Amino acid sequence: MRVGLLTGGGDVPGLNAAIRAVVKRGEGEHGHSIVGFRNGWRGVVDGDVLPLTRQHIRNVLPVGGTLLGTARYHPRAEDGGIDAVLATLEQERIEALICIGGDGTLHAASVVAEAGVRIVAIPKTIDNDVFGTDQSIGFDTAVWIATEAIDRLHTTAESHNRVMVVEVMGHHAGWIAVTAGIAGGAEVVLTPEEPFDIEKIVKYLKHRHRSHASFSIVVVAEGAVPAEGSDMPYLPPVGKFGEIVAGAIGERVKMEIEQRTGFDARLTVLGHVQRGGTPTPVDRILGSRFGVAAIDAITRGESNVMTALRGEDIKLVPLPEIAGKIKHVPADLLEVARALA
Amino acid sequence: MRVGLLTGGGDVPGLNAAIRAVVKRGEGEHGHSIVGFRNGWRGVVDGDVLPLTRQHIRNVLPVGGTLLGTARYHPRAEDGGIDAVLATLEQERIEALICIGGDGTLHAASVVAEAGVRIVAIPKTIDNDVFGTDQSIGFDTAVWIATEAIDRLHTTAESHNRVMVVEVMGHHAGWIAVTAGIAGGAEVVLTPEEPFDIEKIVKYLKHRHRSHASFSIVVVAEGAVPAEGSDMPYLPPVGKFGEIVAGAIGERVKMEIEQRTGFDARLTVLGHVQRGGTPTPVDRILGSRFGVAAIDAITRGESNVMTALRGEDIKLVPLPEIAGKIKHVPADLLEVARALA
Amino acid sequence: MRVGLLTGGGDVPGLNAAIRAVVKRGEGEHGHSIVGFRNGWRGVVDGDVLPLTRQHIRNVLPVGGTLLGTARYHPRAEDGGIDAVLATLEQERIEALICIGGDGTLHAASVVAEAGVRIVAIPKTIDNDVFGTDQSIGFDTAVWIATEAIDRLHTTAESHNRVMVVEVMGHHAGWIAVTAGIAGGAEVVLTPEEPFDIEKIVKYLKHRHRSHASFSIVVVAEGAVPAEGSDMPYLPPVGKFGEIVAGAIGERVKMEIEQRTGFDARLTVLGHVQRGGTPTPVDRILGSRFGVAAIDAITRGESNVMTALRGEDIKLVPLPEIAGKIKHVPADLLEVARALA
Amino acid sequence: MRVGLLTGGGDVPGLNAAIRAVVKRGEGEHGHSIVGFRNGWRGVVDGDVLPLTRQHIRNVLPVGGTLLGTARYHPRAEDGGIDAVLATLEQERIEALICIGGDGTLHAASVVAEAGVRIVAIPKTIDNDVFGTDQSIGFDTAVWIATEAIDRLHTTAESHNRVMVVEVMGHHAGWIAVTAGIAGGAEVVLTPEEPFDIEKIVKYLKHRHRSHASFSIVVVAEGAVPAEGSDMPYLPPVGKFGEIVAGAIGERVKMEIEQRTGFDARLTVLGHVQRGGTPTPVDRILGSRFGVAAIDAITRGESNVMTALRGEDIKLVPLPEIAGKIKHVPADLLEVARALA
Repeated sequence: MRVGLLTGGGDVPGLNAAIRAVVKRGEGEHGHSIVGFRNGWRGVVDGDVLPLTRQHIRNVLPVGGTLLGTARYHPRAEDGGIDAVLATLEQERIEALICIGGDGTLHAASVVAEAGVRIVAIPKTIDNDVFGTDQSIGFDTAVWIATEAIDRLHTTAESHNRVMVVEVMGHHAGWIAVTAGIAGGAEVVLTPEEPFDIEKIVKYLKHRHRSHASFSIVVVAEGAVPAEGSDMPYLPPVGKFGEIVAGAIGERVKMEIEQRTGFDARLTVLGHVQRGGTPTPVDRILGSRFGVAAIDAITRGESNVMTALRGEDIKLVPLPEIAGKIKHVPADLLEVARALA
Repeated sequence: MRVGLLTGGGDVPGLNAAIRAVVKRGEGEHGHSIVGFRNGWRGVVDGDVLPLTRQHIRNVLPVGGTLLGTARYHPRAEDGGIDAVLATLEQERIEALICIGGDGTLHAASVVAEAGVRIVAIPKTIDNDVFGTDQSIGFDTAVWIATEAIDRLHTTAESHNRVMVVEVMGHHAGWIAVTAGIAGGAEVVLTPEEPFDIEKIVKYLKHRHRSHASFSIVVVAEGAVPAEGSDMPYLPPVGKFGEIVAGAIGERVKMEIEQRTGFDARLTVLGHVQRGGTPTPVDRILGSRFGVAAIDAITRGESNVMTALRGEDIKLVPLPEIAGKIKHVPADLLEVARALA
Repeated sequence: MRVGLLTGGGDVPGLNAAIRAVVKRGEGEHGHSIVGFRNGWRGVVDGDVLPLTRQHIRNVLPVGGTLLGTARYHPRAEDGGIDAVLATLEQERIEALICIGGDGTLHAASVVAEAGVRIVAIPKTIDNDVFGTDQSIGFDTAVWIATEAIDRLHTTAESHNRVMVVEVMGHHAGWIAVTAGIAGGAEVVLTPEEPFDIEKIVKYLKHRHRSHASFSIVVVAEGAVPAEGSDMPYLPPVGKFGEIVAGAIGERVKMEIEQRTGFDARLTVLGHVQRGGTPTPVDRILGSRFGVAAIDAITRGESNVMTALRGEDIKLVPLPEIAGKIKHVPADLLEVARALA
Repeated sequence: MRVGLLTGGGDVPGLNAAIRAVVKRGEGEHGHSIVGFRNGWRGVVDGDVLPLTRQHIRNVLPVGGTLLGTARYHPRAEDGGIDAVLATLEQERIEALICIGGDGTLHAASVVAEAGVRIVAIPKTIDNDVFGTDQSIGFDTAVWIATEAIDRLHTTAESHNRVMVVEVMGHHAGWIAVTAGIAGGAEVVLTPEEPFDIEKIVKYLKHRHRSHASFSIVVVAEGAVPAEGSDMPYLPPVGKFGEIVAGAIGERVKMEIEQRTGFDARLTVLGHVQRGGTPTPVDRILGSRFGVAAIDAITRGESNVMTALRGEDIKLVPLPEIAGKIKHVPADLLEVARALA
């Protein structure tokens, strides 16, 4: 059986672990040929293939990024993208497709599956907001990097009596902000889940600095927004792929705090470093398990499903069930962040 | 309300996160006084107390070990230990007790609970074998350290054409061996769950080195044992606390491989470094969540229960339900380790 | 003997190692009393003292920042600062002073020394531009952090076919940019030492992306400037302490590259994370050696000198000799960065 | 010009940086062809070549080990090794040779140079004991790893009131023990430079634990030996390459401390993890600078010399001048380790 494989959307650490697992398990256990497509759906449309053997996946386990490359393009019926995908799959005699990606890639996967292609998807996203799975590839490493950065900012904040504002990723959900905030001991965590009132934050910081501390750490998800009716009007600026412009809300929060408290405040925008470097063991293991589960599912004839972590188990979830849904940070985790501030 | 707090058994990274959470939440939300006992149950028996306030927990979040100290002693009815515990609790006017520990500590907690003390327990163990919870405090950091070590050994193994044997912790269950083995790309993983046949391993290594590779990584849990009937008789040597003697099985496996293959083999025993240093974000968050859940449960009047991670949620599990049980590595995870070798 | 101790200027990792060494050696070997001043020269002027004993320095070796706090204030004769310093020293019966700091602190130290105070200085600076010493405390950790960040950006750059621009610290000298650039394998390194021609860089990137690569890493020191006569006019914006505004030149370089090449370019500003977190062994050892050498020199009666690393040795250098001088990156190191691009 | 390149002796992190620099600079600046030999001198004798181009060195900068492989074999005139080397060089039309290695490799390089081959050597060794250079490739990473391990052991030692003995590399010189000992805040450091009196150490530990602390870290170089006349007779066991058997002195020191103090003591033998993994920036930069300097020197016609770090500069040192000499830890560094215990 010839199985196609692609990685789409933003790159995250752990993609190579999943690619390696698909190839090793696919070749070794099932005797499949694995055909990689370069740069996500772009490569399927263009017929840009890279046949993958054990040789290609040597030493990739600890390497971040994706050896297949990736792109943010997604095929649509309207622009002939779906037809081009079907044409390439036929020409390359691909019988099934494994798609590793986030929201956009998973949506496209479902559309292509409904056009008759056997597809199993694997969720990856720094933001951890893919519905239906406890965790997606890349999230654990991003939290690790963000926590390390907060640890670093902690000592410099304390030495200088400063408010350090750290903007982390998280457009629709505040997973990185909340978890790295808890792990790093942040005083304030701002998320898309809970629109914030800048005056309450300012009051809290003033109280804290008056009573016992001379510094604070404020973690801001890039998708955090002020509550309606609060006196800090704000419209998040949006880039060409619909992504939030990095640094925008962080800069605004820093300015407001500085002006309203008179404290010395500094902004750090973590940005792309959150995506890179060697994956944590958790992401390598999650990628490996998802890869094995995906190629096993494909072989059994499953389609239009996504591998998912549920507790200690790997399950399959129908793609249509998760379409258009966002996995938000649950209330009890938000409460822990607040309780330990 | 006066709430006692102790950490027992071997130290792990993340204990201070749990202590900090109990104190912050206990003081801040519930208005309790938290009284720490030094060196586990030893301190309860001896009345060795350390009243804990917000001052004591400043900056402990990223610090490994336990600020309360710990010991392997557990009170028994037979030697008057339980009576001594009850006497101290009465004298110190402690109304409830939070015990952070592994098998031994949890067992003692249940015994003390049944003697009428309100107790909530928090599971911690490098080995991750506490039943009833997806994960225990300390495990994620240990896997991180073991994976980093395997990554390091990988490059030196490859440069020298060697078989590197790495012994990791795991007495009754092979969690570290299997997860770090998958994350580090080990060729062979030996666990207590699956008694091994040294001849099969030797055959596999010979085949591998003949066909395409000139080095291999073999990860051995300290509690791994040869299969009955295999031609490598072995009785694991045991120390004074019933613990496996470090390096024993690793040295034996290394010798057998060297003698049976003629390959150059080297042993690394990770030992105590697996226990130490700054906790990963996962362990800091798990410790924080368990700490908050434990003090909330105590306040609600719960007793003889343990906090547990189940998927994305924190639950309470009755201590008697988990007594005497070991959480083994499930078959599908062992299969992933094997599939990706 | 009562010896005063202060840390001034921006905080860096390794300050606590120096403080610890001064206290341990001062108390243990020489029988001195060490008196810390809070927040640099500010604390001397205000008489804000913290008597330092072995108790204060427990466990500080691996901790970043400075337990004494720091500030950018420097005393001047004109505003009565020098008189205030002398008054405090007399009142506290301080017979000698150890000052740990960068350019500003060292200059102030020399002025105070010339007013009759026995002073030994210890150089610290992220930028590594203090003249007269091979290395200053904090530099090695900053290079470590910047290199780790470049490693991370490397995998994401490669996965997305992007130009990643990274702005690192370095106002008057490009030490971090050059060393992290070499260590991280950057394609282009821009420094204050060599004003750059944006057209030459653009040409090189175009050539590179046409011939064999689809991504590039460009490291920019915050003090990098375009060459006169090049077609990219630029005046670096300056903050209230004379410091370069973070992100300014990086943003500009990123924009120019994007517009002139059409490649997808992204900016990362490392900022304050370069200052923080646990110091590398090199910075802990340098801080320890400088601390021991400073208190030994003070005890021998030296004054108006700075501890300096020269090859493998610690030497003393007269402060007036280094005043107003900048240690630039030597030509051969710039050449290595260029040769390996 | 065709230039041969080999890496000999034990692998260390940073070798790939040097290989990469030789290839990039050799091809790019000088137009040479670089021919690698596999597995050190073994590959020269056997004619086992790997022509190296820019393709081979992609992405190797952050990778530990050596892409050329290495071995401990050294050619001798007596067994025809030198003749075999000359024959291979002639057959492959190699005009000059760059040898990266430690004592053994450098000695062989000098012998081959005296047989008429143009040779430039680059020093690498974990132990940092190559004479004539401030530092050798691999040392900084080893210190980093050993310090991280000591940091980890620190928290577990403190939690359990234990004496942790850590054996690190260092056969003839105690560089890793002294520097990681200072960086990690060890209480006792044992080196080959200063034969130790176990009774004095025991007395110190007893005093320490009686007065203010309940734990201690003892760092032991593998080549540490008891002083003559002390009551702990000891002959270090030696392996087949003349290397010290790992763990031997560490185990002995641990036992003696345990028996003479009654304290709970544990041994950690760092072993091969000290050799592996991604090199620190310092080792990447040192490897890069040495590589550029070596190929430049070869091109200028230099021979029988070694690249050396002297302060901030790279110099060339005649190989015969360093033959048979060991660079020991200087007295002032040993004094700092003692002062800060």
